[in-house]
Amino acid sequence: MLYASKEEIQNRIDKLKILMEKASLDGAFFHYKIDYYYLSGTMQDSLLFVPLEGKPVLFVKREISRARRESPLEEIVPIRSAKDILLHIKPAKKIGLQLDVMPYNDVIKFKDLLGKCEFVNVSPLTKELRKRKSPFEIKIMERAAAIQKKVYRYVPEVLKEGITEIELGGLLEAYAKKLGHEGLLRVRSMNYEAYTWHVISGRTGSIVSQSDSPMGGLGLSPAFPVGASMKKIKKGEPILVDFGICYHGYQADQTRMYAIGSMPEPFGGAFEACREIHYRVLDKVLEGMASNELFEYSKNLAEKLGYGDYYLGYKPHKVRFLAHGIGIELAEFPFIAASHTYPIEEGAVFAIEPKMVFPRKGACGIENTVLIENSRYRILTDNDESIMIL
Amino acid sequence: MLYASKEEIQNRIDKLKILMEKASLDGAFFHYKIDYYYLSGTMQDSLLFVPLEGKPVLFVKREISRARRESPLEEIVPIRSAKDILLHIKPAKKIGLQLDVMPYNDVIKFKDLLGKCEFVNVSPLTKELRKRKSPFEIKIMERAAAIQKKVYRYVPEVLKEGITEIELGGLLEAYAKKLGHEGLLRVRSMNYEAYTWHVISGRTGSIVSQSDSPMGGLGLSPAFPVGASMKKIKKGEPILVDFGICYHGYQADQTRMYAIGSMPEPFGGAFEACREIHYRVLDKVLEGMASNELFEYSKNLAEKLGYGDYYLGYKPHKVRFLAHGIGIELAEFPFIAASHTYPIEEGAVFAIEPKMVFPRKGACGIENTVLIENSRYRILTDNDESIMIL
Repeated sequence: MLYASKEEIQNRIDKLKILMEKASLDGAFFHYKIDYYYLSGTMQDSLLFVPLEGKPVLFVKREISRARRESPLEEIVPIRSAKDILLHIKPAKKIGLQLDVMPYNDVIKFKDLLGKCEFVNVSPLTKELRKRKSPFEIKIMERAAAIQKKVYRYVPEVLKEGITEIELGGLLEAYAKKLGHEGLLRVRSMNYEAYTWHVISGRTGSIVSQSDSPMGGLGLSPAFPVGASMKKIKKGEPILVDFGICYHGYQADQTRMYAIGSMPEPFGGAFEACREIHYRVLDKVLEGMASNELFEYSKNLAEKLGYGDYYLGYKPHKVRFLAHGIGIELAEFPFIAASHTYPIEEGAVFAIEPKMVFPRKGACGIENTVLIENSRYRILTDNDESIMIL
Repeated sequence: MLYASKEEIQNRIDKLKILMEKASLDGAFFHYKIDYYYLSGTMQDSLLFVPLEGKPVLFVKREISRARRESPLEEIVPIRSAKDILLHIKPAKKIGLQLDVMPYNDVIKFKDLLGKCEFVNVSPLTKELRKRKSPFEIKIMERAAAIQKKVYRYVPEVLKEGITEIELGGLLEAYAKKLGHEGLLRVRSMNYEAYTWHVISGRTGSIVSQSDSPMGGLGLSPAFPVGASMKKIKKGEPILVDFGICYHGYQADQTRMYAIGSMPEPFGGAFEACREIHYRVLDKVLEGMASNELFEYSKNLAEKLGYGDYYLGYKPHKVRFLAHGIGIELAEFPFIAASHTYPIEEGAVFAIEPKMVFPRKGACGIENTVLIENSRYRILTDNDESIMIL
């Protein structure tokens, strides 16, 4: 297992404190585990307090010996009741809490405990920090991508005519787990779950669902209405495999296309258009174009190439993003999206996914996880991109 | 796919309204999808409003045609902005919201939108409703258990000396998915995730982690510190397979024991003690003993049988529950737990799991999903219970 070093965690905490000072925060609590994992190195059942002055304190409910092994923080203490928190913190005027994800009732308990101080949402600060990945994080994401590369090479061994989408998805998942894939793709949302079995074929590629994605897939039931279904995969239809990998909590995202026999039109041509958009947008990322401009640029390209109606979904179900940052959550900063205005900076890792949906016929597209470093882009998911015909 | 009928949903709404009237609620919003699935039949991205008087309204963000196919509710309308809600609701004094799970910032948006009315947590009402399963729900849970039965019969085909815990877990999951298993085991918690690959062997059975479970397992990394690990399974050690199945959102939970070659002591004897506790507690359930008394009764039995130190974990890591209700969430009412005081009623479905942990050696136990009906218990997970020696 890989553990974050003392320097790695100290560096993250130092950067957080700079942002906290700008926001006039005296301290901040991190109760949502994604963020305290980032700031402490452990996901044991804990609560992290970071004061503007002084050392962070990790309060651990269960299990403290593992937390001490995993986290390089110096102050790791057991917590039996909420009042234990008061022994370790000073009176404050303004305190950060994760108000975007913490349940209302839990926030009220904090307010009751800490009395008259102002509470503000600290999540924009950690989201800002996580826009840039460290060399340690990139190393882990490279390992996730290496597992993913093997999984995509395994597809031809198990993709046969007549196999159901879910059976194929399950076999890929089993293979990936053997290699260290952790199964869950975490998302910062009460209601949205991402599955790793996003295998869709033929007409299921044109089925829209609750997810903010150009294609939803049929899924297995009204309770799992996204992704792979019991539909059998047939000859001569587009097969889209969008299979995320998670390693030490860090994700890599990728989409490749397959067909048995041959890939019918319009999917062959549309796939080439997606690939062209993918690379031409990456060139513009390096030129410093802003997120919303990149999005518009890609839309214009899709129109010029003759695919405007199908690009990123069919109306009224078009989505308004082309890329999502990725790391310990599936959708982090930066995005390439209609409503985001910043440029994509050094250290960003994002999944860019131009996709096309043809009503009642299916979907196609490409997706890679890309790192911006040294004013260049590096594709972490760098296995063969061409349509694989089986 | 199975859809809830109009009568099924109407029946749930009617029962909810009785509880709402007792709580003096004029209406309630359901934004967390587990509960609006229960009350509407769909998990499309929606918001459900149930007024005390009049018909429920399902506001659907995405995707409305699927919501209309899946839900028998009459009022299903699109929602573009939060203000659309105001067109469909009357001024109210007291409104229910899911304050235990809804993020703080989302609740504040509701308060801003709806103005001066009192907001109370509606979740205790839906939890109360879901204590009793309907014949339709039981039918789905029987199907989940039927898939599970096949998965456990499949274990001997893939469990070999030298296979890693995670590879075995992945293979079981792939097989289960092919049969319709939906992969995720949903839990009502911001931080707690349940995995389906809870396969632990030998000493990993004695490793405690962040989960409220007698045994945690080593897991794969600090970011996934629970369940199956890269440890290879050896001859002559206890192998515990706790593999939950999800079908149409409903779960069945089960644990069985395996060994290659032979099962060493103390695990053989401890397993028999677990089995005795399991059945003697079920007899007391039928006699109407209260939850906390059942828990104490089981502890006393474990002590009499000579396993007091190991029962439900080794101190200081003992857990304070023996059984958890199960349905569309992994931990529903009723519980058999130290802090619960009600008897277990007709229509309850719960997973009872007496387990023993021996420090540095491993764990063993049994678990079944059990239905109380017609003053009897019926084990839904009714495959062979004995230790399987391979």
